[in-house]
Amino acid sequence: MKLGRILRESFEGAVPRLVVAQPEQGRVIDLASAEYERLLHSGASTEAARRLASALYPSSMSAAIAAGPVFLEAVVRTVAFVESDQVTLPIEHARWLSPLDPPVMRDCLAFERHLLNTFPKVLSRVPEQYYEMPIYYKGNPLTLIGHEQEVAWPDYTQRMDYELELGFVIGRSGKDLTPEQARSFLFGVTIFNDFSARDIQMHEMQGMLGPAKGKDFATALGPWITTADELDVHHLTMVARVNGEEWSRGSSSTIMWPVEEIIAYVSKGEGVQAGELIGSGTVGWGCGMELGKLLKPGDVVELEVEGIGVLRNHIGEPAPTGWTPTRRTPGGSQQV
Amino acid sequence: MKLGRILRESFEGAVPRLVVAQPEQGRVIDLASAEYERLLHSGASTEAARRLASALYPSSMSAAIAAGPVFLEAVVRTVAFVESDQVTLPIEHARWLSPLDPPVMRDCLAFERHLLNTFPKVLSRVPEQYYEMPIYYKGNPLTLIGHEQEVAWPDYTQRMDYELELGFVIGRSGKDLTPEQARSFLFGVTIFNDFSARDIQMHEMQGMLGPAKGKDFATALGPWITTADELDVHHLTMVARVNGEEWSRGSSSTIMWPVEEIIAYVSKGEGVQAGELIGSGTVGWGCGMELGKLLKPGDVVELEVEGIGVLRNHIGEPAPTGWTPTRRTPGGSQQV
Repeated sequence: MKLGRILRESFEGAVPRLVVAQPEQGRVIDLASAEYERLLHSGASTEAARRLASALYPSSMSAAIAAGPVFLEAVVRTVAFVESDQVTLPIEHARWLSPLDPPVMRDCLAFERHLLNTFPKVLSRVPEQYYEMPIYYKGNPLTLIGHEQEVAWPDYTQRMDYELELGFVIGRSGKDLTPEQARSFLFGVTIFNDFSARDIQMHEMQGMLGPAKGKDFATALGPWITTADELDVHHLTMVARVNGEEWSRGSSSTIMWPVEEIIAYVSKGEGVQAGELIGSGTVGWGCGMELGKLLKPGDVVELEVEGIGVLRNHIGEPAPTGWTPTRRTPGGSQQV
Repeated sequence: MKLGRILRESFEGAVPRLVVAQPEQGRVIDLASAEYERLLHSGASTEAARRLASALYPSSMSAAIAAGPVFLEAVVRTVAFVESDQVTLPIEHARWLSPLDPPVMRDCLAFERHLLNTFPKVLSRVPEQYYEMPIYYKGNPLTLIGHEQEVAWPDYTQRMDYELELGFVIGRSGKDLTPEQARSFLFGVTIFNDFSARDIQMHEMQGMLGPAKGKDFATALGPWITTADELDVHHLTMVARVNGEEWSRGSSSTIMWPVEEIIAYVSKGEGVQAGELIGSGTVGWGCGMELGKLLKPGDVVELEVEGIGVLRNHIGEPAPTGWTPTRRTPGGSQQV
């Protein structure tokens, strides 16, 4: 099953809708509309059908996933019913959103080749912590964008890059899991393009607080989530193209930390919750920094992952220069 | 106005409720219950009164704040009506939750004295980035706890510490703000205890991705949010006590980055959204690391901030040892 979110026009403006994507049939199914039809057909009143359909398929994917197995069972039932063309849309007309609106978003750096290709450019070597545990930074889930959405270019960067990654979607809540337990917590996988402003990222990370402005302006996700039952998550071919030219090619088989160990580690002490997002980190050779290349305004970046699809975004024009903090003088504040 | 969240028993278990705290009157007002009474009194049907009251006062504070000025206007109207004792509770019976459930949570290190007291213990000096801009790390909003809730002690730490901070609550959404514009984006201020597992924090930060397990097990917030109109945010006395003994004392007047510059910086490129939380960072001498002290299980930590109140938490027993990742051998994965 491929699950996504699109925008549809209503008399209250554009609203997010959960969909099942069926690319081989060239269509998407609006789940709330299809369930409404199914309920009417089975004898519900229009009022009750509308109420039940919108409770099952809210605008938030993480809220939908939080219903547990009930959600996917309902999707199967809804899709099996689809009769009316009114509840399907041609896939080429879909206006995609990020398929997920996670309450927390993390990103690991779980591919060793990426570490070996990048760290020597910044520090002398790969920090030993990457071999001890699947460490991660936390991103800003409010800056997620979907397939075909434009990447905003912040005023503070001149070095824009992409990153070819998998996005793991958590399906259940739990804490202090073992890897064996964690396996069943993977709801599905999507494509994760961790667009990066390399100049500010490298500079701010010297402050030891992790990336912030270097990552938190646009992270692309999509086009949809493929549920875990349809994928062999550790054997997926991953490709990046810029303006139609292949720049990166790798495989999820090269990952240093399997997804169940990543989920188990994340769950330690803090727990995981349904609808959370965890990036795999960049596959080896999966970003311009590893290739000595940069993106420019107007570029079109496509990430393709076997079993999922193609996530395409184009790069916007740089934002006009805004306010910038003025440097403080050490000792200039009243330190006490 | 002092706004918080408490748990109340219902026939569906304990549910979060928004409240106004009136400590000087020894009570809290359950906003949805009070508004229900007010609507009934003004002629609404029970069904309509229940529907409207719960839409205005949902269980999420960030969702309530997102209504804009409508929210505080409604609170004023609701509180002015309060007649029935059924809608107020003795403050000593309140079971507090984190007053906020933010979609994103950041924490700055905006007090220079704290930097000078801590960085020389880890690096040779304070990184210049702290003087260039109000940098921050992102926390896990799902691990926020409230006043009087227990601090879970994760299995991976032996060095538990507190941090005495302010929590700034964002009231409106905006992007690329100037400090002048940002001033009106501060909804209110709360007390923020950024409990820290110093051993894992110092170790994992060498990986350059910022703190994660070192912070993301329990961050205490509360007891409530005092709205910005009631405070002079840059002139607040801040005190920490452990088991009744004063350990820390400082003032928000020593902050290096005023709150409007912090909000403006955070809004750059990514924007801020109503209901977000930004920590000030630890006031100088505001944590055990600066004093050569540590917490132990059973300790009671109280943070007091002028104009807000006292946030009290006790430290739990260490969790039993769980699964831990096995170290990887460099070159051991198929790097490609």
